[in-house]
Amino acid sequence: MGMERIEIGSPIIGVIGTGSSRPDFAKLAEEVGREVARKGAVLVCGGLGGVMTEAARGAKEIGGVTVGILPGPKTADANEFIDFPIATNMGQARNTIIVHTADVLIAIGGGYGTLSEIALALKIGKGVVALQPQFQVPGVVTAHTPLEAVDEALTMVILGRKPLKMPESRT
Amino acid sequence: MGMERIEIGSPIIGVIGTGSSRPDFAKLAEEVGREVARKGAVLVCGGLGGVMTEAARGAKEIGGVTVGILPGPKTADANEFIDFPIATNMGQARNTIIVHTADVLIAIGGGYGTLSEIALALKIGKGVVALQPQFQVPGVVTAHTPLEAVDEALTMVILGRKPLKMPESRT
Amino acid sequence: MGMERIEIGSPIIGVIGTGSSRPDFAKLAEEVGREVARKGAVLVCGGLGGVMTEAARGAKEIGGVTVGILPGPKTADANEFIDFPIATNMGQARNTIIVHTADVLIAIGGGYGTLSEIALALKIGKGVVALQPQFQVPGVVTAHTPLEAVDEALTMVILGRKPLKMPESRT
Amino acid sequence: MGMERIEIGSPIIGVIGTGSSRPDFAKLAEEVGREVARKGAVLVCGGLGGVMTEAARGAKEIGGVTVGILPGPKTADANEFIDFPIATNMGQARNTIIVHTADVLIAIGGGYGTLSEIALALKIGKGVVALQPQFQVPGVVTAHTPLEAVDEALTMVILGRKPLKMPESRT
Repeated sequence: MGMERIEIGSPIIGVIGTGSSRPDFAKLAEEVGREVARKGAVLVCGGLGGVMTEAARGAKEIGGVTVGILPGPKTADANEFIDFPIATNMGQARNTIIVHTADVLIAIGGGYGTLSEIALALKIGKGVVALQPQFQVPGVVTAHTPLEAVDEALTMVILGRKPLKMPESRT
Repeated sequence: MGMERIEIGSPIIGVIGTGSSRPDFAKLAEEVGREVARKGAVLVCGGLGGVMTEAARGAKEIGGVTVGILPGPKTADANEFIDFPIATNMGQARNTIIVHTADVLIAIGGGYGTLSEIALALKIGKGVVALQPQFQVPGVVTAHTPLEAVDEALTMVILGRKPLKMPESRT
Repeated sequence: MGMERIEIGSPIIGVIGTGSSRPDFAKLAEEVGREVARKGAVLVCGGLGGVMTEAARGAKEIGGVTVGILPGPKTADANEFIDFPIATNMGQARNTIIVHTADVLIAIGGGYGTLSEIALALKIGKGVVALQPQFQVPGVVTAHTPLEAVDEALTMVILGRKPLKMPESRT
Repeated sequence: MGMERIEIGSPIIGVIGTGSSRPDFAKLAEEVGREVARKGAVLVCGGLGGVMTEAARGAKEIGGVTVGILPGPKTADANEFIDFPIATNMGQARNTIIVHTADVLIAIGGGYGTLSEIALALKIGKGVVALQPQFQVPGVVTAHTPLEAVDEALTMVILGRKPLKMPESRT
């Protein structure tokens, strides 16, 4: 699994979603990962199972690069498709590192952990594209296919488009 | 502003909400703070302005105790009603510390930062009561008055009641 | 164990040291805790065993106030003398929160964890007083008795005295 | 600056040291970086200036891979030789992430920030090799040349050799 086509300064796309393995989300995640890699972007995720594994698997299928920002203390906990595991030992606080590191986020399904990442991303002005969103959050752009999600995400990065501010977002 | 009636092992109630000063939220926050103190609970919040200031002000009006978990590096940034400022220098990652520290959370209004705290709280199994919720999040209990919010929060703590798990919450 | 004499804006003294229970360090820690409380300062520590327990015990013996910044996810892990447990779930990264929160640090004995706190404190310009230092670190002031340590620490806070900068400290 | 020879599971070597640009340390750092890359290991560092820049420069000179774990909120703050910037927004708490992520650490010179990383590494059982150490810390292995440092570091990883425990290291 060599790495190709990644240059310093490549866009970094965060892929977030549930750690469980619902088959429909898994399929979407794998396709998103493949598309991220095809576009020459770096995939960053939480490094564990479910959507995180499937997205990384997709990226590696076509020679992409994957970074996993782990909640635990050991890089060995990363799934097998992670090139660069980051061991934070900070539990869910690692979610803030994912959103600071990614230029833009793609959410696939997702539970409360994913919702926290979406909220943090919007809070700090990063765009979020959702596939099969489980929560309705103003400011998130919904996509209907993995290809559309990745295209929309990259457009946000290129145009520097930011999510609308909530009227009373907190400092 | 002495402290009274606080014993080791008192319940810790997190009060979260927008940092801006919308008057209706401010009034609710002050009443929540007062009620938290009246019940002998410790108030923990983000330590800055808006709902955080007003809740702490309310608690101090009747001799309660307030802890402020700050995003920045300096305890001096805490609002004037914080007895014990904690300087994390971790930005929004301090939100995870608030939810781990509180036994239960009360959200008043709130933007994306508050939404991230709500999601993190539910993720780790802490109950959340909301006044004037700005987002609909399954698992959050809505209250209609500050008194009802604090009563509901304390009941959750006493009964050890946990929020329902999302079917696919991520590890 | 009521709390008395603590006002908002009281100095915050961090007491750091080994988690094991070497009797000589334990005795020093208890006396430091007592002296911190006698002077009306707030004691902040890592909230667990060894020096952390003994310092908090000393402070509570005379009605002081104690804050414990814990590495784990649960406030229930705090030792029994902690009034206000802060659950960070961040492992050793909580050491940075201790040094940002304290106005000054007193180190008692200590292993590598303590050394990291000493280094972080000096890095961000906080003074460090050591009793029975286990490492020689330039910039640390050695004291010979608990009373001397607390007096020196409070003098540092009052005079705003900062540790000397290392010639090549890193950003 | 393509990347070659990196396989999933390659050793990760942390290079730490002062952010200032003392020429003797800079030269050592560049040679260490080159040697890390030559051995097919991933270089992780703090992503900013001084030793961090020079080590990353050295690694990129021969097609190595570099990860920078930044204290600030923006990946754009990474030096120009960082392939994969991780934006933590956690200030010095990012030091714990560097030591959890690296399999072994090489310290070059260094001030208090570096000392905190050395202490944290030893605390969690990671080996540390030092070139031109500025502090004497038991458990650190001193090397005399960049080549010797990298060889010693890789030997530690391969043999799973751990630093000796301090008698009273704190939990």
